[in-house]
Amino acid sequence: MPKLVDHEQRRRELGEAVWRVIRRDGIEAASVRKVAEEAGWSAGALRHYFSTQSELLTFAMQMVVERIEVRVGALEPPADPREAVEQRLHELLPLDKERRAENEVWLAFAGRALVDPQLRTRHEEVDEELRRACLGALQELGSGGRLRPGLDPELEAERLHGLLDGLALHTAMRPDRMSPRLIRSVLARHLDSLGAEVDGLGGHDNPTGDRGSGRQ
Amino acid sequence: MPKLVDHEQRRRELGEAVWRVIRRDGIEAASVRKVAEEAGWSAGALRHYFSTQSELLTFAMQMVVERIEVRVGALEPPADPREAVEQRLHELLPLDKERRAENEVWLAFAGRALVDPQLRTRHEEVDEELRRACLGALQELGSGGRLRPGLDPELEAERLHGLLDGLALHTAMRPDRMSPRLIRSVLARHLDSLGAEVDGLGGHDNPTGDRGSGRQ
Repeated sequence: MPKLVDHEQRRRELGEAVWRVIRRDGIEAASVRKVAEEAGWSAGALRHYFSTQSELLTFAMQMVVERIEVRVGALEPPADPREAVEQRLHELLPLDKERRAENEVWLAFAGRALVDPQLRTRHEEVDEELRRACLGALQELGSGGRLRPGLDPELEAERLHGLLDGLALHTAMRPDRMSPRLIRSVLARHLDSLGAEVDGLGGHDNPTGDRGSGRQ
Repeated sequence: MPKLVDHEQRRRELGEAVWRVIRRDGIEAASVRKVAEEAGWSAGALRHYFSTQSELLTFAMQMVVERIEVRVGALEPPADPREAVEQRLHELLPLDKERRAENEVWLAFAGRALVDPQLRTRHEEVDEELRRACLGALQELGSGGRLRPGLDPELEAERLHGLLDGLALHTAMRPDRMSPRLIRSVLARHLDSLGAEVDGLGGHDNPTGDRGSGRQ
């Protein structure tokens, strides 16, 4: 199947060019023309993958999904369910430059889906995947005995999902304020609060520690 | 001060026209031209208040802030601190058509601030006001004895703020999915989880009740 291999190779090559443009210019400034220049492709060659800003965003969003899947697939989860869940959720959060770029693609994609019906179905699919990831995290905590008794997993998934996207939004808006350390602390505190301990602080290390004003 | 009165009257009149356009066409479609038509004003008369899309958004955002302040100021808070906090936070959440329009203005304003430095300072101010409102809510719960001992108010304010904006984003993206009832349930559950009770479910009524799959 040489044709398929060629297509996959071309797609990867293009994906790398897209990512370089996003990293360098930001997703808001990434245009079809810039990507073509970066890849050294003609507009015609590009058209097979995308030819409008909306299609470029959809392509970039698909890259983000694949990048996260690859990273999560490569994880070696610790035995402790709480640690395993935390490790996996970290892959979804804007904790380094690469994940911040992914986060910006996600929010730009969501923003575009608001006004472009073509993107809405795909947005809903990704949104559902995220919700399922949250529900899966809750279920893993539950079956590992790390969830307070009596919690409603669906409602907790909704709450966790809301928190993750809220942190994503806050980080995109105010990257200097939302340090990786602060993001990790908020998530750790949230997972602590779901924990089976009855003192409300969980058994995890104190997430605030010497955070001071919460900025660093 | 007849001139000041006149200015205030004109501003209110314009504000109402802006709001009618936003409610009818959505914030994304609200343009300076449409607002001028709606108000029956000339472009020159409008220019005193705004003349670009960014300035229109800033004007609309200021309206949202004022609308929320007026509503919160008119509340008659119940004696119970948990109920008082919940009532106040409901004013910030997209729980009816008016608040959903406010929510869309907020997110459009945030989205624009990402790419328009002119809006960034004002965005940060509103963001800080929201954070302070969250911190104030936590402090009120604390001084009313409705907060688990040992919680870090700054970190909890960050978490509550993240959750509120996450719910805002999810509601704008998927208004049919995020019913007012679901939003209220998520917030109620969050406040329960902060409560001083040790069973992890708080003393509030079960927020999930007969929600079924969490959708309605």
